[in-house]
Amino acid sequence: MTISQNEFSLIEQFFSNIGSSSYSVELAQGDDAAVVDVPRGKQLVMSVDTLINGVHFPEQACAADIAHKSLAVNLSDLAAMGATPAWFLLSITLPKFDEVWLSEFSASLKETSNQYQIKLIGGDTCRGPLSISVQVAGLVDKNCYVSRRGAQLGDLIIVSGQLGNAALGLAHLQQKVSLPVDLIQPCVEALNRPLPRLELSDFLTNYASAAIDLSDGLVGDLRHILDQSQKGAVIRRNALPVNDWIRSHQAYDFALTGGDDFELCFTVPAKYISAIDDWNQRNPKCQLTDVGEITGSGYLLVNNQQTDDLTHWQGYQHFE
Amino acid sequence: MTISQNEFSLIEQFFSNIGSSSYSVELAQGDDAAVVDVPRGKQLVMSVDTLINGVHFPEQACAADIAHKSLAVNLSDLAAMGATPAWFLLSITLPKFDEVWLSEFSASLKETSNQYQIKLIGGDTCRGPLSISVQVAGLVDKNCYVSRRGAQLGDLIIVSGQLGNAALGLAHLQQKVSLPVDLIQPCVEALNRPLPRLELSDFLTNYASAAIDLSDGLVGDLRHILDQSQKGAVIRRNALPVNDWIRSHQAYDFALTGGDDFELCFTVPAKYISAIDDWNQRNPKCQLTDVGEITGSGYLLVNNQQTDDLTHWQGYQHFE
Repeated sequence: MTISQNEFSLIEQFFSNIGSSSYSVELAQGDDAAVVDVPRGKQLVMSVDTLINGVHFPEQACAADIAHKSLAVNLSDLAAMGATPAWFLLSITLPKFDEVWLSEFSASLKETSNQYQIKLIGGDTCRGPLSISVQVAGLVDKNCYVSRRGAQLGDLIIVSGQLGNAALGLAHLQQKVSLPVDLIQPCVEALNRPLPRLELSDFLTNYASAAIDLSDGLVGDLRHILDQSQKGAVIRRNALPVNDWIRSHQAYDFALTGGDDFELCFTVPAKYISAIDDWNQRNPKCQLTDVGEITGSGYLLVNNQQTDDLTHWQGYQHFE
Repeated sequence: MTISQNEFSLIEQFFSNIGSSSYSVELAQGDDAAVVDVPRGKQLVMSVDTLINGVHFPEQACAADIAHKSLAVNLSDLAAMGATPAWFLLSITLPKFDEVWLSEFSASLKETSNQYQIKLIGGDTCRGPLSISVQVAGLVDKNCYVSRRGAQLGDLIIVSGQLGNAALGLAHLQQKVSLPVDLIQPCVEALNRPLPRLELSDFLTNYASAAIDLSDGLVGDLRHILDQSQKGAVIRRNALPVNDWIRSHQAYDFALTGGDDFELCFTVPAKYISAIDDWNQRNPKCQLTDVGEITGSGYLLVNNQQTDDLTHWQGYQHFE
């Protein structure tokens, strides 16, 4: 569809000049479509995620957080493929024209897109219940992308960062848990301001046999790798990188089944263990943790006392 | 975001194997992102359009029409750029899981995507108020795309097909007009089943100096070409390709300001007039009509009796 004069002004005012990319843009906003050049030797990586008010972010979420998260969850998909961000499209549905809201949304989108070097090249605006749909395009060296398919027997299962913080932040907002003061801010930030782990893209293309981003919880997301690689796994509960509250309350479910962490989970041949140690020494803010191992079949969670079978465990479901 | 087990089954059941493309796909649904190869010498053309229930299609619209239109309006953008369809992503938000609705939607999407040779390679599903967001990717020979920018003084203004039928169909459904029986079906079909004019892609890249698709009505959409080309125009009202009802009722507003036609409007240097005649002889189902001329400045509608100034006319607006 073309854009009406008014929509055109809205896009001019709030959505021009958002983000930057090292990849060139032939034609951006203001036409029926955007035109870009894909450099020789690269493959194009594409993904879309829609965020719905009250489903993917709380009703009271501020415009800045919504903008960041809409882009971040898509960038997280690129990270999981080992891709580098290049361009994105934005489709935004708003109940009404709200200049203050749009200004905050636009400023936050600009900040996040500049930070991760991705440029807005097109999109559309509609009137309706608040939702944001972002389509990202990234690039990867030909045949160097990382899929969910390549996990091999004996591979280590690695996760980035800490797990469970976003789910804990949500539980706090819903007044389901009572957190110590110093944990509130980091947990709520983990929920509203997830960090796409793009710094790991190169590491993944060099060392990972399979990867996925953690949006629905480790158990459910790792299962996708197992299904597509036709393998099993053992997760060691005590190895999970969690905060002190989760560990002391034995509340590992936040890490195992809580959504929205947007950390990466990937498998690495055991011979590359030293590459992981090297990474950890050089990247104190993005620690990698070995939480288990790929097996021939089955899906188990082990801890000191017991072994749980995860085979039929069901993750978060949109259609229940 | 990754997809939950249940969403995964839904995608498997209804959204696998949709459409075909002559361009290869390295990795489609079932991973964090899709991976494709862009052939050497081609540029990538990308667009997104979201269709909201009750805004872009009537509340009572059937799933098959919604599926067709969601894809067709995006394909229309590719046509206006002179591009060839290659791949698309789909983000679908549904109030509930409805197997009958999804089956109809899926079957229609398959039909339309096969017809226009475009392959579904990814997307996501959410729960929320019904809306459909489609992102299309097309290809065009390097530097051969057609933008809104190139209209030149003296160029002919050409439109494809008949204008105003979709708006007339809507007026009929809203019981605002009383149409003769033989016009009802074609007008309602023009509204619900728009035909993207992809057959014109090559013609545009060969002859057009600028192009746009008609989603908001000729006057508003042509203005985008004029703005971006920094030119004026004269439209001849009596030359507009309209059906007999519009002509006999002098109801030209349906053609001038009615939305949703998804015909193409493009400008062609006058020296190519014979190419247009040739096209019309070979393509009885997609007739091209010369409706006016590009001028240095101003924006006028002329007819036998009078001249109207279109400069400050406002088209359909999403945010009023």
